[in-house]
Amino acid sequence: MTIHDLDTPALVVDLDIMERNLRRMAEYAAQHNLRLRPHTKTHKIPALGAMQVALGAVGLTVAKSTEAEVMVNSGTPDLLIAYPVLGVKKLERIKALTKRVKITVSVDSVEVAQHLADAGLEVGVLAETDAGLGRVGVEPGQPLVDLAKAISAMPGLTFEGIAFYPGHIKSTDAAGMTALSNLGDLLTSIRAQLTQADIEARIFSGGSTPTMWHSHEVAGLNEIRPGTYIFNDRNTVFSGACQVEDCAASILCTVVSTSVKDQFIIDGGSKTFSSDLAKQPGHGWVVKYPEALFAKMNEEHGYVSMAGAKSSVKIGERVRVIPNHICVAVNLHEKVYGVRGETVEVVWSVDGRGKLQ
Amino acid sequence: MTIHDLDTPALVVDLDIMERNLRRMAEYAAQHNLRLRPHTKTHKIPALGAMQVALGAVGLTVAKSTEAEVMVNSGTPDLLIAYPVLGVKKLERIKALTKRVKITVSVDSVEVAQHLADAGLEVGVLAETDAGLGRVGVEPGQPLVDLAKAISAMPGLTFEGIAFYPGHIKSTDAAGMTALSNLGDLLTSIRAQLTQADIEARIFSGGSTPTMWHSHEVAGLNEIRPGTYIFNDRNTVFSGACQVEDCAASILCTVVSTSVKDQFIIDGGSKTFSSDLAKQPGHGWVVKYPEALFAKMNEEHGYVSMAGAKSSVKIGERVRVIPNHICVAVNLHEKVYGVRGETVEVVWSVDGRGKLQ
Repeated sequence: MTIHDLDTPALVVDLDIMERNLRRMAEYAAQHNLRLRPHTKTHKIPALGAMQVALGAVGLTVAKSTEAEVMVNSGTPDLLIAYPVLGVKKLERIKALTKRVKITVSVDSVEVAQHLADAGLEVGVLAETDAGLGRVGVEPGQPLVDLAKAISAMPGLTFEGIAFYPGHIKSTDAAGMTALSNLGDLLTSIRAQLTQADIEARIFSGGSTPTMWHSHEVAGLNEIRPGTYIFNDRNTVFSGACQVEDCAASILCTVVSTSVKDQFIIDGGSKTFSSDLAKQPGHGWVVKYPEALFAKMNEEHGYVSMAGAKSSVKIGERVRVIPNHICVAVNLHEKVYGVRGETVEVVWSVDGRGKLQ
Repeated sequence: MTIHDLDTPALVVDLDIMERNLRRMAEYAAQHNLRLRPHTKTHKIPALGAMQVALGAVGLTVAKSTEAEVMVNSGTPDLLIAYPVLGVKKLERIKALTKRVKITVSVDSVEVAQHLADAGLEVGVLAETDAGLGRVGVEPGQPLVDLAKAISAMPGLTFEGIAFYPGHIKSTDAAGMTALSNLGDLLTSIRAQLTQADIEARIFSGGSTPTMWHSHEVAGLNEIRPGTYIFNDRNTVFSGACQVEDCAASILCTVVSTSVKDQFIIDGGSKTFSSDLAKQPGHGWVVKYPEALFAKMNEEHGYVSMAGAKSSVKIGERVRVIPNHICVAVNLHEKVYGVRGETVEVVWSVDGRGKLQ
């Protein structure tokens, strides 16, 4: 099967680029002695999780308990559920999984930790702190020490360290590098406070996509959980963390209409790409037509503006589009097609698609 | 099973409201002698398509050939694929479906019509015209007459009329009503041009959600294809086409963190709601807390701003959120739960989810 046989829209991954992305991150983590626990929210495919583990990842990360049920099929020995897990059904799922794989959960409240302990779970726990994003995580300082203490005292729970997500650092410009340096100071002070309280934190787990190649410059950080790096996307390029040539995933679309002047319509819209925006206008890059602007979307229509489109772009023509945000785009597709050149080498089912609970 | 047994996030539909919405539209169409061919992109559930047909819809509408494969299971006698269909696999699917149901396709180019005819399809065809949105559709006037003529001459294709989507009319304020009146003039002139060319157009199919209750005021319009009305959403309320009380669908979420002052985090973000925006700030209405602003999203986190949230909103509490755009939200969920009061009366699988081809 070749790429020409695919029905569109189709999410296509260039295997050469993907494998290079995977190796580069594995080498970076090994070189700097960082534990690598890739977040699988980007691909949601157990076979790709298995590749990450084969390349040296210590484990994998998921956000939800149903994603964990899927990702255990990668054969990973270790799964981090980086989310405050609440709800009886979720705990039942996790309890069943603990018989197959080591599970760690990140929590940011005594309530959630107690909920895990009350259910008789035997899991590792990371205490989540807010490093500046203002999403989840208790304040560093006494609240974090108190949470770590509470977790350490609960039966079944093993306190393993600290988790955070510095999503507020959007790039590695001068301001970003200062923020990373401050983050190192913060981790150093957290470690000192925990030591003083006689609590051992083995793991300091953090990192974000825009700052991924600077993780080793953050003092005290010893685990990273990058996700997007396997495929990369338009927003990763804008953040400075990769080049366009590192974008492994694109969506193959067909031009279905050229009725309107200086515009063509592709057979993918918000149900194919998601409506996530980017730092610059446009819903993606049309690889073949760099001068085109993917200006607007409806659910199943993509509006691409291009001077002279009607004469130069033909109905039935196929174009590849690099999306703004690959993680939400993959979640919209039943299958991902792995290609080498024009050959479709592998078809993966997106088993973790829509696993929201 | 009650609503309290549902694992979150869960897409919940109030059956009383949904049934009222369905009846209201069926009665409106019957009263004004409008053919009703509801667009099923909103619910993607065959059982709901069957309800629409049982209430008098002449057929159902889909956007994609794979959606048609799903929606034929509703038992509808008639399916409109309101999309320029291009591609060998799509035509194979449609050809198989024509043995089970009457299929009509809307096309806006001779190329696509020829593609259907060359494949030996026997289908009805609507010629799509651009009524002002600038998406698909040939220009009204000679280009439309030429397209209708070409379709009429092709073997296997039965020219049935005109399709358009007036998505540029966003509300029924004074400007909107003038635009609707102009639309009627346009349809009248199209009918005259076709008659003069000795072409009979049986169907004039159009309409949009914001203008749905004014369809009978558009001269010449005899078929409507509303979709969102079955559930409604925040954007439908903003357009003036329904009240908040008419919103049948909401997403049940759990508060998972209150760590940050004046904010709580729910267990749904862009992978649960979609990132579609609305006319006003916010990603949805938190029903229980009208003073709250659903200000921000990540993939699995919803940030809800509310003064005093930390003390008044508890971890583990459940809230229902009416999304901005229900059509894209349903597409993210494996199941939809139909509830009456607190009882879960029916669980539907979203069979059309992710059917992009």
